[in-house]
Amino acid sequence: VAELNETQDPRRRSWVETANARDTDFPVQNLPFGVFRRPGGAPQGGVAIGDQILDLAAGLSEGLFEGDVASAAQAAAGAGLNPLMALESGAVSALRRRLSDLLRSGGPDEARVKPLADRLLVSMADATMELPAAIGDYTDFSCSTHHMMRMGGGTVRPVFLHLPVGYHGRASSLRVSGAEVVRPLGQVAGKDGQAVFGPEPQLDFELEFAAFVGRGNALGRPIPIGEAEDHIFGYCLLNDWSARAIQFFEMALGPFLGKSFLTTISPWVVTHEAMAPFHTTAFVRPEADPPIPAYLRSEADRRAGGLDVRLEALLSTEAMRRRGDPPQRIVATNFRYIYWTLAQMLAHHASGGCDMNPGDLFASGTVSGPEDEAKACLMEANERGTRALALPGGESRLWLEDGDEVQIRGRAEREGFVPIGFGPCDGRVAAAEAKA
Amino acid sequence: VAELNETQDPRRRSWVETANARDTDFPVQNLPFGVFRRPGGAPQGGVAIGDQILDLAAGLSEGLFEGDVASAAQAAAGAGLNPLMALESGAVSALRRRLSDLLRSGGPDEARVKPLADRLLVSMADATMELPAAIGDYTDFSCSTHHMMRMGGGTVRPVFLHLPVGYHGRASSLRVSGAEVVRPLGQVAGKDGQAVFGPEPQLDFELEFAAFVGRGNALGRPIPIGEAEDHIFGYCLLNDWSARAIQFFEMALGPFLGKSFLTTISPWVVTHEAMAPFHTTAFVRPEADPPIPAYLRSEADRRAGGLDVRLEALLSTEAMRRRGDPPQRIVATNFRYIYWTLAQMLAHHASGGCDMNPGDLFASGTVSGPEDEAKACLMEANERGTRALALPGGESRLWLEDGDEVQIRGRAEREGFVPIGFGPCDGRVAAAEAKA
Repeated sequence: VAELNETQDPRRRSWVETANARDTDFPVQNLPFGVFRRPGGAPQGGVAIGDQILDLAAGLSEGLFEGDVASAAQAAAGAGLNPLMALESGAVSALRRRLSDLLRSGGPDEARVKPLADRLLVSMADATMELPAAIGDYTDFSCSTHHMMRMGGGTVRPVFLHLPVGYHGRASSLRVSGAEVVRPLGQVAGKDGQAVFGPEPQLDFELEFAAFVGRGNALGRPIPIGEAEDHIFGYCLLNDWSARAIQFFEMALGPFLGKSFLTTISPWVVTHEAMAPFHTTAFVRPEADPPIPAYLRSEADRRAGGLDVRLEALLSTEAMRRRGDPPQRIVATNFRYIYWTLAQMLAHHASGGCDMNPGDLFASGTVSGPEDEAKACLMEANERGTRALALPGGESRLWLEDGDEVQIRGRAEREGFVPIGFGPCDGRVAAAEAKA
Repeated sequence: VAELNETQDPRRRSWVETANARDTDFPVQNLPFGVFRRPGGAPQGGVAIGDQILDLAAGLSEGLFEGDVASAAQAAAGAGLNPLMALESGAVSALRRRLSDLLRSGGPDEARVKPLADRLLVSMADATMELPAAIGDYTDFSCSTHHMMRMGGGTVRPVFLHLPVGYHGRASSLRVSGAEVVRPLGQVAGKDGQAVFGPEPQLDFELEFAAFVGRGNALGRPIPIGEAEDHIFGYCLLNDWSARAIQFFEMALGPFLGKSFLTTISPWVVTHEAMAPFHTTAFVRPEADPPIPAYLRSEADRRAGGLDVRLEALLSTEAMRRRGDPPQRIVATNFRYIYWTLAQMLAHHASGGCDMNPGDLFASGTVSGPEDEAKACLMEANERGTRALALPGGESRLWLEDGDEVQIRGRAEREGFVPIGFGPCDGRVAAAEAKA
């Protein structure tokens, strides 16, 4: 579990004024890494601070980093964060301390750095975000028993209690927030047992939380559970857009085209260390559940392997936006409801010898909880297609319609610490016809 | 469908004498691309000819390629073939014509090229092969009804007849022929409904055939069936090593750790054009089967979308090797038994908008046929674990034991053409204990 240190100190404030706003996702305690483009520019690494991005290449050319910290900044300054993710966690931590010192009020170099603000900072409003890393492999787990229960009609298959069930996802169709959700075409079950090819009629989202792998492991060399968290670089939000009719028609060997038309992530990677204050007891499994197998059991993980992150999904329709209505919150849940910890997912993933590489991404599965409002996809909320959601202005939804926009948000909060967020994870549905 | 041209002319012979042997996989009609290392050297692109490799970088520095052909050779000369795969098929074809002219007896530059042989050629015996491309995504289809029938206990689920069923595989654990097969650890079903963690007791192989994607498609833009074959760069053999006990215990959302400890491919990519003589009528589906949906139907594909490739698997045990016994053939099958064509698999894969990229790999699934000897994995041959295979010297096998080596071979033959092969796709099983 990551350590608390001065970078999470709630007394720290930034000379970037927007980083001190109560509702910002990016106070000086967060400092997530991402890849952005200036207008017309090439992809490069940066750090979110308030509504600004610290340009790491600019910081390097101004000589703001020295020695090993300069090497780490260099590793974070390119078109993908993979070299940064491959570093020992100590090197990432040293870079974070320096970034905190550069951006905080009263830091050691404030007098030198503040006058350089025009060169060092890029407004988020002017930048385009890119995928934060070259994602070699993407894995989607399914670790919410609440989700499985509701999707399975009241039962959870025993295997979900024995191990973190997962499947390989499609890496190529991952995009950052804002990518258009083109409704997929596909074969679905027709009326009389016939198959019908056409636009997906039951388009859904799934609110998920995901982790980027830091240092990897060699093929054939498992990652012990006690070391797994140290292999996690950081976190993002993820929308596992799901074409339910395609998915349920095709699914013999797991999800395939029902999921691979697009997966959206939030562009900023909140580091393992930034999340240190928000660890919590892992979801306490019922006594009657199978014991945790030895290769997934560690006292530290059991004590603090969970993460307390409030997660919500908001929906806006074309009509709502036309009227100027705000998006309606349709999900409110928390990552602590997940049955297995992220460390357990990673240790399990590598337990058979599968090699994990820096920049690999793995997601938790739909983060559903016990409450009604914690049903984290439409198929749960609509009770498997039987009960439409009521929306403002007399609209209702069983499934997503063209023009609908889903926004996922996350926020970690704990008494005595400054809350941090994850930035946007948004997508708007476009008609299949537009590009078919 | 690729065109016949002078590069497949059976009268062509090579001044590299080993390329004229009757049993070589690499006559001058084949010319597959791969990535190799000289002793102590960096990965670089080459072309197989007999028992030699043509070093493309050396050919470029000798000025053997000009204009667009030099650009294509440059794209093939690096540490991965992805830039070559991204080219229009015409550019690849032009490079192939030039390679054929350089390596054939009586070619236009023979007098100039032969004296350079020491610089241009590297003996395969001295080279180490690497993955031929950076494989962004790997997909495994399951397109043999014979395999499904035997694995499923006599029935094939209808969806396998409606569409090419596939799942996302793990890209990171792909390796070329020769990689050690470390027996994976994992949870399997114990005696009394308990889960047990330990070395896989039912290690199996699956003989498969695979294709590399050439030019890709943009997200949200399907590849029409009529264009799909032009997006296939070439082919290789694949062993989908399978840990059956792990696989059947874990499988709720498709194969995961039961398959991701290692997947072996043959290192040479036989191009689409080299395979032009070996096209055949696609497997004729029974009249009673569902009609082929429009997005997977093309007359050209129906007429010649299949490939006639003899495929076999050989097994040798430690005891057999100690006695000097040759490997025993345990599978003899043919790729023409596959129910869907590779073009149909690719068109289906992209039909929902999933973006395919140059260097992506997709495999056919176990290539089983109707005959007893065409059972292309142990689980079929041993009748789901009930009937052991007899081996020389009184040995028998239900599943793979430590020290067992599986070799997969492929050969395309047709009257009036020179047969071509795929090179080795081998792996030897090592004990789980060795690296656990």
